[in-house]
Amino acid sequence: MAVDRPIAQLGRRLRVGFVGGGADSVIGSVHQIALRADGLGDLVAGAFSIDPQVSRETGAALLLDPSRIYDDWEEMLTAEASRDDRIDAVVVITPPSLHQRISSAFLAQGFHVLCEKPMTDSAEAADILARDAARATGLFALTHCYTGYPMVREARELIGSGAIGEIRLIESEHAAGGPDMIRDPEDRSRRHWRFRRESMGIASVLGEVGSHPHNISEYVTGQRVQLVSASLSTIAPGREVFDNAYLNVTYDGGAVGRIWSSFVAAGQEHGLGFRIFGDEGSLQWRQEDPEFLWHLTPGQPLRRISRGLPSTSDVARDSTRLGWGHPEGYLMAFANIYRDFLSAVVAHELGGDPAPLLDRLPGIDDGLSTMRLIDAAVRSHEAGGQTTAVTGSR
Amino acid sequence: MAVDRPIAQLGRRLRVGFVGGGADSVIGSVHQIALRADGLGDLVAGAFSIDPQVSRETGAALLLDPSRIYDDWEEMLTAEASRDDRIDAVVVITPPSLHQRISSAFLAQGFHVLCEKPMTDSAEAADILARDAARATGLFALTHCYTGYPMVREARELIGSGAIGEIRLIESEHAAGGPDMIRDPEDRSRRHWRFRRESMGIASVLGEVGSHPHNISEYVTGQRVQLVSASLSTIAPGREVFDNAYLNVTYDGGAVGRIWSSFVAAGQEHGLGFRIFGDEGSLQWRQEDPEFLWHLTPGQPLRRISRGLPSTSDVARDSTRLGWGHPEGYLMAFANIYRDFLSAVVAHELGGDPAPLLDRLPGIDDGLSTMRLIDAAVRSHEAGGQTTAVTGSR
Amino acid sequence: MAVDRPIAQLGRRLRVGFVGGGADSVIGSVHQIALRADGLGDLVAGAFSIDPQVSRETGAALLLDPSRIYDDWEEMLTAEASRDDRIDAVVVITPPSLHQRISSAFLAQGFHVLCEKPMTDSAEAADILARDAARATGLFALTHCYTGYPMVREARELIGSGAIGEIRLIESEHAAGGPDMIRDPEDRSRRHWRFRRESMGIASVLGEVGSHPHNISEYVTGQRVQLVSASLSTIAPGREVFDNAYLNVTYDGGAVGRIWSSFVAAGQEHGLGFRIFGDEGSLQWRQEDPEFLWHLTPGQPLRRISRGLPSTSDVARDSTRLGWGHPEGYLMAFANIYRDFLSAVVAHELGGDPAPLLDRLPGIDDGLSTMRLIDAAVRSHEAGGQTTAVTGSR
Amino acid sequence: MAVDRPIAQLGRRLRVGFVGGGADSVIGSVHQIALRADGLGDLVAGAFSIDPQVSRETGAALLLDPSRIYDDWEEMLTAEASRDDRIDAVVVITPPSLHQRISSAFLAQGFHVLCEKPMTDSAEAADILARDAARATGLFALTHCYTGYPMVREARELIGSGAIGEIRLIESEHAAGGPDMIRDPEDRSRRHWRFRRESMGIASVLGEVGSHPHNISEYVTGQRVQLVSASLSTIAPGREVFDNAYLNVTYDGGAVGRIWSSFVAAGQEHGLGFRIFGDEGSLQWRQEDPEFLWHLTPGQPLRRISRGLPSTSDVARDSTRLGWGHPEGYLMAFANIYRDFLSAVVAHELGGDPAPLLDRLPGIDDGLSTMRLIDAAVRSHEAGGQTTAVTGSR
Repeated sequence: MAVDRPIAQLGRRLRVGFVGGGADSVIGSVHQIALRADGLGDLVAGAFSIDPQVSRETGAALLLDPSRIYDDWEEMLTAEASRDDRIDAVVVITPPSLHQRISSAFLAQGFHVLCEKPMTDSAEAADILARDAARATGLFALTHCYTGYPMVREARELIGSGAIGEIRLIESEHAAGGPDMIRDPEDRSRRHWRFRRESMGIASVLGEVGSHPHNISEYVTGQRVQLVSASLSTIAPGREVFDNAYLNVTYDGGAVGRIWSSFVAAGQEHGLGFRIFGDEGSLQWRQEDPEFLWHLTPGQPLRRISRGLPSTSDVARDSTRLGWGHPEGYLMAFANIYRDFLSAVVAHELGGDPAPLLDRLPGIDDGLSTMRLIDAAVRSHEAGGQTTAVTGSR
Repeated sequence: MAVDRPIAQLGRRLRVGFVGGGADSVIGSVHQIALRADGLGDLVAGAFSIDPQVSRETGAALLLDPSRIYDDWEEMLTAEASRDDRIDAVVVITPPSLHQRISSAFLAQGFHVLCEKPMTDSAEAADILARDAARATGLFALTHCYTGYPMVREARELIGSGAIGEIRLIESEHAAGGPDMIRDPEDRSRRHWRFRRESMGIASVLGEVGSHPHNISEYVTGQRVQLVSASLSTIAPGREVFDNAYLNVTYDGGAVGRIWSSFVAAGQEHGLGFRIFGDEGSLQWRQEDPEFLWHLTPGQPLRRISRGLPSTSDVARDSTRLGWGHPEGYLMAFANIYRDFLSAVVAHELGGDPAPLLDRLPGIDDGLSTMRLIDAAVRSHEAGGQTTAVTGSR
Repeated sequence: MAVDRPIAQLGRRLRVGFVGGGADSVIGSVHQIALRADGLGDLVAGAFSIDPQVSRETGAALLLDPSRIYDDWEEMLTAEASRDDRIDAVVVITPPSLHQRISSAFLAQGFHVLCEKPMTDSAEAADILARDAARATGLFALTHCYTGYPMVREARELIGSGAIGEIRLIESEHAAGGPDMIRDPEDRSRRHWRFRRESMGIASVLGEVGSHPHNISEYVTGQRVQLVSASLSTIAPGREVFDNAYLNVTYDGGAVGRIWSSFVAAGQEHGLGFRIFGDEGSLQWRQEDPEFLWHLTPGQPLRRISRGLPSTSDVARDSTRLGWGHPEGYLMAFANIYRDFLSAVVAHELGGDPAPLLDRLPGIDDGLSTMRLIDAAVRSHEAGGQTTAVTGSR
Repeated sequence: MAVDRPIAQLGRRLRVGFVGGGADSVIGSVHQIALRADGLGDLVAGAFSIDPQVSRETGAALLLDPSRIYDDWEEMLTAEASRDDRIDAVVVITPPSLHQRISSAFLAQGFHVLCEKPMTDSAEAADILARDAARATGLFALTHCYTGYPMVREARELIGSGAIGEIRLIESEHAAGGPDMIRDPEDRSRRHWRFRRESMGIASVLGEVGSHPHNISEYVTGQRVQLVSASLSTIAPGREVFDNAYLNVTYDGGAVGRIWSSFVAAGQEHGLGFRIFGDEGSLQWRQEDPEFLWHLTPGQPLRRISRGLPSTSDVARDSTRLGWGHPEGYLMAFANIYRDFLSAVVAHELGGDPAPLLDRLPGIDDGLSTMRLIDAAVRSHEAGGQTTAVTGSR
């Protein structure tokens, strides 16, 4: 722990509010732990649920000041905007269909916004949010949490430094299959919201799951998907949305690759990972074994790079809390997103430059890229798998 | 070792001849070890190379009777056909472009034929060989060696018995990238024959490499690829053939899947494996760790099935020579192909039924299926990845 | 997150103070993260270092009330004892030679005490602390952090339920070898305190390192080491303390085993793990891969039990924050120690029974057992490895 | 396959006879496969069992000349010694109590001898055999089969070249626990010969199992065990021999270490492996994953060295038949013992120097070392674990 850290210069911890993430939400408690980990901010306000009762109970369980537990996000926005001790940043943890409206509204009032993925529920909404964020004074980032893993960041640094040469093939996937994913209950009312057409649209597998391998492959390589040929399937009998997506893609840097996302890879516990092949070697990583990055060089011993080694990059080492040998896991990866975002906010508040910190984080451009890919993938699928350009206003 | 084994009933070891597999061939020595392993046959004759000098030196190094070391396969066929102690079986280890002619000719003279993969160099040639094999009295099988692995056979048995339910997704790949694969020497004359258009055609990656994941996925699931959408690439600069193939496929049993074959997966040492997902679980296997079959069931502990366990199937246990704990590896998998094929020949010679043994081995139908897939894949690629039916005369 | 959690009943977060754990301490930041993770307590006071300047800087960096940043622990004890909003609990993170005095003093004033391992620096001090804790109203536990891992707790539950039968062999080890461990700098003043005789005594490898495998083996099996034969070595040239310890042990439940602790296992990154063999199977676990517990049964497939599976015990599932597939790692294991201890304090404050929570945590008896083992091991070594009883006042 | 190999110069394959290894023996078929693998010798004669009927059936099943199937080894020795086409070498595959008498007798008649491990059943018998071998013209080697693994040999070469510095700690173990090992049937007559006192003596675990980790640790380090402190146990209830042995040892090169051998490590499938720690790094290897040697260097990425890599030593590459990526397994390791021994015999017959080949193989000195260790270990155990010197006549 450095005693001269910027938060001490600021002289207070940041005040953070949540929209969503209530006691009925799994990801809500993940956000809380990630926020607390480094002591940079406190959760002081929230509209935690679409159900005001849940919101109130959540706030009470968290021992929040009752006056800052809100029934809905509009109320929260109005109230917080007028407080002297108003929150510095809001975290948007709602269903994707609300992301744009909430984010745009808080940005418009000068708040910093940290938003869950996928950024929106359509390419159009993504464009709107991009426009609004460009006009805003506040900072914006996406909690594509897997980019918080030190070894993912190390992969990005190594690729950037040419460690595996020119990138040729990019294989990524997020294919899981838990008991509640591989089939739907007969009783439609008992189905998970992921598998209801009304809540997530028919291509939910692409937003919910596929956005991760897409984002991570772009994050580590610095390339954007340019062309996509999609084959979407509904595998579980009676299901009303796609639950398996095969995308064959071409990146703007010249690489080709595949992105597989699935809810029906029966028995795979999480199933996120990438393999990036250059003309001199490859880097491979799996979220279920995240402490290690595997560096393959043809004809040479395989190298397993451990988180925390002295030879790793500054960014990777700066994203750890422990030396090698003690696994840090998912929550600290998620906490890195918070640490970098809140540190960027502190830098911003102190009049410094938040850019180097924001550079570590997925942001507007990344969210746009994902939403446009999904859009193009659905069009490709509807055209029988035709190769389709990922287009956008910029 | 059972003392009452059929070979003892026959009272002699089988006489085997090689076409190809000379001292200039890596795979030739693999065949020799596989043939020797179980003492069912002796290599007694051969036309080991297109170069008569190499053939003679190979035969001499193997201490063969000089009169049975031949300059070419036609000479060998004529001479062996007229000997009283003629070979029982011939093994065809030549480039694929010769497989059909040699196999058909030996079959026509009543020899048993064990042929390397891919079965031929075209769907047409495969049809001819299929017709000739149907007319022949001799047995025919393909050395798709990976089907000799006990745990691959166990996967087939488990899937057949419904252990993972109805098959939904079939992922297979064979993606390697050694120093001599990922790029070509500038001097064209020093390029490997795999990467010369004149020797293997432009789609050699599909025959040389892709035939393995295709065959193994059909072998373990009992399903045939029916539709294919192909994306073939030439990745290494200046290379004149495809070296990476992405196939998206639909199987006739209803499963969808992908087959990836590559010479440019830099640093992967071998890279053959499959993941088969049913509606109740999945089975996963990697050739580089072949003693184990991984059985995943959603929400339950992962099970690692070891070769040799009492709970494994009769076929799997019959395909091993050792108890669990001592790895058997690739050569014994290859030897299983020989053991089953030669045992089938013995059964045939003793008037028994070779069918149960041949059922363990890839044969004409499997070779046909592969050659037709390759044909369809090339057509699909040329049509911009259009979904294309894998068609055939039967 | 349960909305009805006891902390909400209590209506406030617990107030926690640190003795030690300053900015010059690696483990200090680990404690901070572990404390923050679940939002049950706040760090509000501390005497963070033997160096008052470091203490003050640490407290300032943590944005603490300056009046609660102390120059030494006696000052802190006096001041806190007289406050209305006094701390509920103190965490002792000093060198072991101070553990007993500080813990006894805080206990005597009615504070709850969470103390780092090893419990003391001698068996005698351990006896004194045991006596003082028995007289105290406050709770006491040890941060033997590895017992916070869900899969370690699952092993304990499985063994307790007879899953591997009667325990026969207990293998445990903690053998690491980083660059700064495997040799000492020539300049004696630059040596790590671990390797200075004056700071840790000659047997520091047993307290610093060996206490972990000893504690974890007793924790999961419920057996105590009864007899020990020790072989201690100084491997690194010129080093003045032992850096490798081989203990052969007999447990009071009848099992035999070995405990290996080392600073010179060159290249091992952490090296803590156990293998417990019963008469029906075994359980194996490694800290570097902590999400999984391996259950071996003779003649059957290996089972890999993942953290979070429905089939795992209540205690194991209650010790996780995420479902399977997302690794939780070391810091959440450490946070489990805090969560259980602070929850026990809350239960105690609410008039409930803290025993079920304390039962999950190493405490006085465990610390005593370790200190007596170390005492016996040193005596055994000095007697040429003679088998020596681990004795104690109870 | 080199066409100019010495066997071609010799102009014939070697003639080999077996004593033991009949159809009732598991290891017999392993020897047969290992012998056949490289085509250097043929099994032409044998006294395959103590039971003449089994010997005859075995020979018949192998299609041997009936005149060379013998009822006992003395008959075989007499008959073979007087044949013009007498066997070149005999392989001794009997229980250890017969090894010395048979080996000495065949050596005395000028045969080469390849003998199973442990070399004898006592240190005295080992001394006698050593004396007889020294007087003989024939070659002698032990089938300590695990030294045939290319990666074990690579470890030896790396250690010899100083790759991990000066050796400090040597951990080796062979601890298995199959269903038939971890307990004895109540009916004494159904117990395995390993667990009968009359067949193997009380310390069979040391000869049967413990000889492997002892031999392999000496093989790869070039050091000999000098001092031993032993703790032997009988774990399975009612068993009449030791089934678990903990040895703490000191090597003559200064290293300390442990050797664990066990029949009751329930669920471990094979359990042989070593970890050798030097002052600059370590090498680790497990027989169940034998294609890879793990090279650990403090503070650097772990390196996994694959069998067949160009960077491996001449000896390691000369001990393989395949490139990397295709596992070779146990039988090819065993075949390496045969290949080296028979090649040494060929060299000897051709008037060349067999020493470089014999240097790869365990021989008389290694067998002596093991038998003396066992002797010292039993004495140590009887003296309550007292540290005991491993003594010998040289």
